[in-house]
Amino acid sequence: MALTVKQRFFLTILVLAFPLSAISGDPDIISDFVVPMEVNNTLLDGNFFTYTGMRPLINSDPPTNFTVTKATMAEFPALNGQSVSYAVLQYPAGSVNPPHTHPRATELLFLTYGVLEVGFVDTTNKLSTQRLQAGDIFAFPKGLVHYQFNCAENDFAVAVSAFGSAAAGTVSVPSTVLATGIDDEILAKSFKTDVYTIQKLKAGFAPKA
Amino acid sequence: MALTVKQRFFLTILVLAFPLSAISGDPDIISDFVVPMEVNNTLLDGNFFTYTGMRPLINSDPPTNFTVTKATMAEFPALNGQSVSYAVLQYPAGSVNPPHTHPRATELLFLTYGVLEVGFVDTTNKLSTQRLQAGDIFAFPKGLVHYQFNCAENDFAVAVSAFGSAAAGTVSVPSTVLATGIDDEILAKSFKTDVYTIQKLKAGFAPKA
Amino acid sequence: MALTVKQRFFLTILVLAFPLSAISGDPDIISDFVVPMEVNNTLLDGNFFTYTGMRPLINSDPPTNFTVTKATMAEFPALNGQSVSYAVLQYPAGSVNPPHTHPRATELLFLTYGVLEVGFVDTTNKLSTQRLQAGDIFAFPKGLVHYQFNCAENDFAVAVSAFGSAAAGTVSVPSTVLATGIDDEILAKSFKTDVYTIQKLKAGFAPKA
Amino acid sequence: MALTVKQRFFLTILVLAFPLSAISGDPDIISDFVVPMEVNNTLLDGNFFTYTGMRPLINSDPPTNFTVTKATMAEFPALNGQSVSYAVLQYPAGSVNPPHTHPRATELLFLTYGVLEVGFVDTTNKLSTQRLQAGDIFAFPKGLVHYQFNCAENDFAVAVSAFGSAAAGTVSVPSTVLATGIDDEILAKSFKTDVYTIQKLKAGFAPKA
Amino acid sequence: MALTVKQRFFLTILVLAFPLSAISGDPDIISDFVVPMEVNNTLLDGNFFTYTGMRPLINSDPPTNFTVTKATMAEFPALNGQSVSYAVLQYPAGSVNPPHTHPRATELLFLTYGVLEVGFVDTTNKLSTQRLQAGDIFAFPKGLVHYQFNCAENDFAVAVSAFGSAAAGTVSVPSTVLATGIDDEILAKSFKTDVYTIQKLKAGFAPKA
Amino acid sequence: MALTVKQRFFLTILVLAFPLSAISGDPDIISDFVVPMEVNNTLLDGNFFTYTGMRPLINSDPPTNFTVTKATMAEFPALNGQSVSYAVLQYPAGSVNPPHTHPRATELLFLTYGVLEVGFVDTTNKLSTQRLQAGDIFAFPKGLVHYQFNCAENDFAVAVSAFGSAAAGTVSVPSTVLATGIDDEILAKSFKTDVYTIQKLKAGFAPKA
Repeated sequence: MALTVKQRFFLTILVLAFPLSAISGDPDIISDFVVPMEVNNTLLDGNFFTYTGMRPLINSDPPTNFTVTKATMAEFPALNGQSVSYAVLQYPAGSVNPPHTHPRATELLFLTYGVLEVGFVDTTNKLSTQRLQAGDIFAFPKGLVHYQFNCAENDFAVAVSAFGSAAAGTVSVPSTVLATGIDDEILAKSFKTDVYTIQKLKAGFAPKA
Repeated sequence: MALTVKQRFFLTILVLAFPLSAISGDPDIISDFVVPMEVNNTLLDGNFFTYTGMRPLINSDPPTNFTVTKATMAEFPALNGQSVSYAVLQYPAGSVNPPHTHPRATELLFLTYGVLEVGFVDTTNKLSTQRLQAGDIFAFPKGLVHYQFNCAENDFAVAVSAFGSAAAGTVSVPSTVLATGIDDEILAKSFKTDVYTIQKLKAGFAPKA
Repeated sequence: MALTVKQRFFLTILVLAFPLSAISGDPDIISDFVVPMEVNNTLLDGNFFTYTGMRPLINSDPPTNFTVTKATMAEFPALNGQSVSYAVLQYPAGSVNPPHTHPRATELLFLTYGVLEVGFVDTTNKLSTQRLQAGDIFAFPKGLVHYQFNCAENDFAVAVSAFGSAAAGTVSVPSTVLATGIDDEILAKSFKTDVYTIQKLKAGFAPKA
Repeated sequence: MALTVKQRFFLTILVLAFPLSAISGDPDIISDFVVPMEVNNTLLDGNFFTYTGMRPLINSDPPTNFTVTKATMAEFPALNGQSVSYAVLQYPAGSVNPPHTHPRATELLFLTYGVLEVGFVDTTNKLSTQRLQAGDIFAFPKGLVHYQFNCAENDFAVAVSAFGSAAAGTVSVPSTVLATGIDDEILAKSFKTDVYTIQKLKAGFAPKA
Repeated sequence: MALTVKQRFFLTILVLAFPLSAISGDPDIISDFVVPMEVNNTLLDGNFFTYTGMRPLINSDPPTNFTVTKATMAEFPALNGQSVSYAVLQYPAGSVNPPHTHPRATELLFLTYGVLEVGFVDTTNKLSTQRLQAGDIFAFPKGLVHYQFNCAENDFAVAVSAFGSAAAGTVSVPSTVLATGIDDEILAKSFKTDVYTIQKLKAGFAPKA
Repeated sequence: MALTVKQRFFLTILVLAFPLSAISGDPDIISDFVVPMEVNNTLLDGNFFTYTGMRPLINSDPPTNFTVTKATMAEFPALNGQSVSYAVLQYPAGSVNPPHTHPRATELLFLTYGVLEVGFVDTTNKLSTQRLQAGDIFAFPKGLVHYQFNCAENDFAVAVSAFGSAAAGTVSVPSTVLATGIDDEILAKSFKTDVYTIQKLKAGFAPKA
């Protein structure tokens, strides 16, 4: 006997909604780990706790654009409730990771190859910058705007970043402001410029034809 | 006997440093409230729990620029450990509260007079907007970029905002990016524009002579 | 094909139970916001983040009894996980908000019109009182017994209260003690009085015929 | 060289104030335990983690009044940051632990001897009661009004209570309302009675001459 | 109409999975208590908040082996979200509660009868020991290895332990290391011994034929 | 004027004690970051947020023993309140990181070179193992016993581990049990062996002459 359309709909939103609504926080869990509904508990083994999505980055050529590869709760469900996640950041020479924030975690960037110029702005509007060399670790405190720039002329840079949340989130300043449809007049007043300049800036973030 | 200079210095940084370093969180406190070191506990009374800094806003003329008046832990020390604070926002006709985030709290804006166009962008880069009328409450979720615009032609608007932290913090996007000394080249690459446009935008945020 | 009675029952308690059991805390959520199961995510827009239930209070006559109008998670589901909520309190002249506690949050009362006598008792049994005027903010720390009294002879008073939880809860002392069926003898011993006095007090809280 | 009076005062309030202001929460600590300033770390041993204040209760005659003996952070400093504490409750026949709340923790009462009638009222004003026998455990949820009554005619009762906080706090309803100086008129209106009845009730809680 | 096999399966894993995945933390809940899906809310009464599983321990003969009887969220669902739980520990003369940790809570042991030698090791590898007598309370800080030993020659000992979590969890060192199938060579290297000694130790923890 | 000995002592324990007692948790801080007392706030710059202690690991020869290099709050004070930290783990061929727990955080191990056999045991005593290759990430849930083994015959292995706490702590099972002075008889009973075997095992962990 098949489920009716209404039943299917109900059960489906149940499944889809819960990964969002059931996981209300990054607190200590009161179980060793959290198993998603769709995983059969008896088949649970070391594979559930392993993420292999970074393997292709080892021994492959560096990308030609700035590239972020993530291992957060979205890609690696075992992280639910464990309050930690990773990203690998690859920077071609001269590339920039534009100003952004992570609303739910501090980022601890570990530069494993190359050089980087990094900076963040605190809530008193003070900029702190640093030029990192391989082996250096830099802390970008939770929720603050920060950026990285591979200032090398020819060499790429690679960093591993750890976050103190399984789902730190990212708010990229340029695309949040210029690529989401905020009214031109509001942006012109906010940036103390004219609508024409805003429109020119927005053009750089328009979807490619 | 007076304290030596060195002693004074030591004790001073002790006092100054602790309001920062001792208060490491917005969790439930394990006392009814937290009394600052410099307050004599025996003199503690209703005045400690009262903030009168908003009184001048009642029955005074509206300001000619967008104005925020805060009652956070900085202005009202009794809020330490109580996980809540206030701001009053006054918008002349046509004024904007530019895109910004609060790293440590959701903002719950209660529009008490006038009209407002409001919006926020979530971490999937989706913009949600609304036109509010007096009596409406709008929730700007924690850490996300949001703005308000008094779209009325002639009338001012007033809102009260509550925050789920005693020290929500504010990161204003335009001044964070343009008024803190981030390198022109990094910004030009981030905003996909040229250094000249960045410098023109920065000029709008330069300190007044 | 319709659901069977048993299926309906099961699915119904599932829906009813989860808003209670799935949302186990007021911690930082690990998503931007929490969408209830019954809300279609693709239709989500600014309306979900707007609460219009306070609109009728603007420009309407003040009520003749002390009245609380709430905007908590129960009335405004977008507050789930956002750790903040509101109430509007309207006090006719001479009216009282009887002694009560909020088990899950500090109340930050902002008096917008009139005067109020307020007080709270801490866990050392010390009473702190204050006479507030319009524009004053008063902090009632989490979990402590507090009250407000409009001591004006003729004028009403209005306050907005913010809470550092989406579901602060309210425990009203008189009705909790006198209107819930606690045994007369236990109450007489607790209040160091006789059963007759307890019964007379209880009569004031009996349901109206 | 002795400290001046001013220095002594300053250092003293420093020491006194910090146990209050430095310990801002019942969260997971980021050390194994928290050592008070006045304890010499090198002398730290098993004694610091031992509380002997309950020893006199073993094999002593039961008291003639309802008696609470506590082992909270105040009596047992090692509990700071450990989120748990104890009380021993001794009830002569017919005695009552009057309605009260613990603002910062659930109470888990373990009845080790005798019988008890217990009850609590939730925030929907629903009373839940139970008659406990020796060996039973009852949970009084955080922040809710609850009471216990030794309904036995002749025998005493003894319970151990655990709290999920090192400093749960206690708000006793009768003494909070009647013994702290809240205005008679406010109480009369709150309890829907007259000032005379309030004054008679207050007399039962007046300090003994 | 009966549910299909597929429906049953789906609904069943839903019910089984949620007690694990929906309850992601031991934080303050934002309801008075958490009711499991399968409990009919309208039938909820004092029984839900009562645990009677310890009754048999009262007036029964002490067991002949070291025995732990628990009242955690698993046995007593009302504890979900209440951040506290109990265990009763019974020690025949000479018996040991082997070295173990509780990953999610501090243990506060209250010795109600007999004597105990207790100890714990902190993260600096310092052992703190104590000889407890009846009435003593000892704090084993969260996550640290600890043990108890009834050093009496003839008499048994009884303790009640409270935990600052509804699900503290237990990691017993000997069985975790020797009874779970960790490779002999890894254990030999870890314990700086030979594979033969590891195999002899493992034999003590092998399942009985 | 110099400080007296007594003054020095007092101020010194103040300074030493607070890094322990003032930092009571790994919760969200209510400032952007926490500055230690001894750091002059006005001199604060990018250096405070940079840790250079891992630099020597880059391009140096691998060590001949299993080696952990940490960047936690102890080595890198800017991590206070940021809820994240790092370690670099270097494994010569055949070496073992013995069974241990981190009481305050999940470990997210990122294998950057070589191969590793890893495993952890949950609180139901179930062992989960995995053989990792370069690029793999493995999650060791908070508070559970886990180990790593470089099973390669000739090649070393290198991993970076992130922790969801600024001070995760480490409890090494073999040295906690065998090198801290726990009584031989208690250990013999716990491990179901004889005192002689315990003494032989302890000899492997005795301090070198």
